[in-house]
Amino acid sequence: MTANTAVALDPSAHMDELGMRAQVAKREISSAPEATKNKAIECIARTIEQNADRIMSENVLDMAAGRQNRLTSALLDRLFLNEPRIAAIVEGCRQVARLQDPVGEMTAQQTRPSGIRVSKMRVPLGVIGIIYESRPNVTVDAAILCLKSGNAVILRGGSEAMHSNRVLAHCLRKGIRQAGLSPDCIQLVETTDRSAVGRMITMPEYIDIIIPRGGKSLVARIDQDATVPVIKHLDGLCHVYIDDEADIDKALRVAYNAKARRYGICGAMETLLVAEKIAPAVLPELCRKYREKGIELRGCERTRLIEQSVSEATDEDWVTEYLDAILSIRIVDDLAQAIDHIQTYGSHHTDAIVTENREHQRRFLQQVDSSSVMVNASTQFADGFEYGLGAEIGISTNKLHVRGPVGLEGLTTQKYVVVGDGSIRD
Amino acid sequence: MTANTAVALDPSAHMDELGMRAQVAKREISSAPEATKNKAIECIARTIEQNADRIMSENVLDMAAGRQNRLTSALLDRLFLNEPRIAAIVEGCRQVARLQDPVGEMTAQQTRPSGIRVSKMRVPLGVIGIIYESRPNVTVDAAILCLKSGNAVILRGGSEAMHSNRVLAHCLRKGIRQAGLSPDCIQLVETTDRSAVGRMITMPEYIDIIIPRGGKSLVARIDQDATVPVIKHLDGLCHVYIDDEADIDKALRVAYNAKARRYGICGAMETLLVAEKIAPAVLPELCRKYREKGIELRGCERTRLIEQSVSEATDEDWVTEYLDAILSIRIVDDLAQAIDHIQTYGSHHTDAIVTENREHQRRFLQQVDSSSVMVNASTQFADGFEYGLGAEIGISTNKLHVRGPVGLEGLTTQKYVVVGDGSIRD
Repeated sequence: MTANTAVALDPSAHMDELGMRAQVAKREISSAPEATKNKAIECIARTIEQNADRIMSENVLDMAAGRQNRLTSALLDRLFLNEPRIAAIVEGCRQVARLQDPVGEMTAQQTRPSGIRVSKMRVPLGVIGIIYESRPNVTVDAAILCLKSGNAVILRGGSEAMHSNRVLAHCLRKGIRQAGLSPDCIQLVETTDRSAVGRMITMPEYIDIIIPRGGKSLVARIDQDATVPVIKHLDGLCHVYIDDEADIDKALRVAYNAKARRYGICGAMETLLVAEKIAPAVLPELCRKYREKGIELRGCERTRLIEQSVSEATDEDWVTEYLDAILSIRIVDDLAQAIDHIQTYGSHHTDAIVTENREHQRRFLQQVDSSSVMVNASTQFADGFEYGLGAEIGISTNKLHVRGPVGLEGLTTQKYVVVGDGSIRD
Repeated sequence: MTANTAVALDPSAHMDELGMRAQVAKREISSAPEATKNKAIECIARTIEQNADRIMSENVLDMAAGRQNRLTSALLDRLFLNEPRIAAIVEGCRQVARLQDPVGEMTAQQTRPSGIRVSKMRVPLGVIGIIYESRPNVTVDAAILCLKSGNAVILRGGSEAMHSNRVLAHCLRKGIRQAGLSPDCIQLVETTDRSAVGRMITMPEYIDIIIPRGGKSLVARIDQDATVPVIKHLDGLCHVYIDDEADIDKALRVAYNAKARRYGICGAMETLLVAEKIAPAVLPELCRKYREKGIELRGCERTRLIEQSVSEATDEDWVTEYLDAILSIRIVDDLAQAIDHIQTYGSHHTDAIVTENREHQRRFLQQVDSSSVMVNASTQFADGFEYGLGAEIGISTNKLHVRGPVGLEGLTTQKYVVVGDGSIRD
């Protein structure tokens, strides 16, 4: 398929076509045995291996266009594919094949006084729409997770990666067909017209759920306009609170790692909260280490009394997800004020307390309303692999359905199964 | 409070006020111990008992206005309160107090190679908005379920029940205060202005979830306009399929009960599907019994060859939730066509198969994508009490979060709890 044919597509009609095909395909994939799904994944892995040269040559076209369009080096790096990266994509497929299939799991079984046996069966969601930026690895990664969890998927990648995505989608569909499943279990949106996204997020008759992966403004816009339910991740404005009963060594380790390990991930700490009593014992050493690493520090008044070189933080700082080498620091009276700060300014993503006091741990874990709450551990652990999910399609800051890192189980739902013996209700 | 003060309220400002109060109250109720919540429920039960006369005298005002406004006898019956009904409301409260509190439950505990311990903690959703029709018992029932599950609640009942709801809300708030909790855990919308509902369903900053309880048009309208996530129940277009390998006696019992026990509930069968081979053996007897009960029968062509007195069904019948003494009947070739009919015309609420064939049971359970799927049991079992949930705030036809009958657990979500020992990520 060439770019010209894509341009000629009517975006809305194209989306309806994809939606109808996905609805047909979902009936097949939703009840496919695990062995068939694993076979499809292996066929896909092999097809990608066999087509590595073609994938790289298509990627060269995207990279050339990207350079011409003056994409930043960070964006170009995300777009770029070479042999090791393709090998990593293939290995990722095989890892998902090894994960346990959640579909069909029966739980909560009980026999009721009426004689009926009631249980819950785990089942796929149906059709999942993924909207993401120009990262070709996501095309394969997301498709494989949807496949393993028994869902049909419609993929809408960033336009800068269209050549790479087309050849990868070709490999995905070829592999799935080799396993005897309908290729329409995996479909790529073949137009870069933005109105296709507008249609995609407003067709609940065809798509059961939308998962946007990308920057905050993309996600917020999709969430605003969608009538299909959205599993989303908005801000990751994470806090570490060093309690007055913290172990100093643990406090230094955790607070440094939470900021300095990586700046650009959603689990990175953006604001450090320190109990007043312990501040003189931890702040000077911590600030020295942050500065050594080149991190800009912005603090409240009390912080600046201890560390004069820290610049003044404004209210804006408490609500800013820097995703950068910047940290805001606030000294608080006590645990209650720390919790209040987090509940007021935080984004309910991931927040940690460092303390040896059991009662303080308990209060923090209970009262901080975030998708992950941590004790004596770095917020950078917020990740599906670190949590043992074996895979991650994203991190949800929703309260409904799934919350926190989302693996295969998050791509499923449950239904009640009732078995009787000619049972009737009185 | 009199009707006049209510009229004077600015609906939007009133809703914002309720929302802000609920946000404050939710911090308290979300971490209240089970004993405190149970104490509050008992105080509420006693306050309602002690105020039974006042409740009935306020209800008399609603009933008088209802008669004047020519409400149907069915609506008046739902509105009506007397001593036995108030006693039933009180007993309902005490039943919920005896249910296990889902909040705080820890599951999926594991220690990861990094040394962190990861688990999931069950936590309240936050603030729940309930929108319902003129049934004063729902005011208490819904409030108690939200209270026990640690949520603050905002109640918006039908205007015809406003007098009854006000005095009941007074009892609820008095009881909760007696237990030392903020009365703002339970708030009633004090205006009957419809624009208040418009504001209520579009304030995600204050309300975490909306649960509409009422007719399909009310629910559909709310779902259409809401920006707050909605746990909803739309149609209950339920099927029973009598397979060619059904036990005749079980088929007769289940298919009769599924329709005739009660017509007006969402789990009532609306369309009977019968395998061609078995139709001559079951249809004449079944139709005789339906007719005896006064049920109007509409059938496909093949049905009418067996039972000439059945009137002709149109395509409209397959998509109609009668909620009445009407049944549509279709003879299908086999299981595959039955499943296809259900997937095409059904509402994914509750569908049953009657068969002794294990493989047919398995295929039906797996391939029918409904919130409840049943074998050899009446669809009228679709109910939270029958399923052992101990309570029911509604039945969800959503795929996300909760599906099927919703009890206390459906009013909660989970968060990840990570415990380390100064743990940092490599």
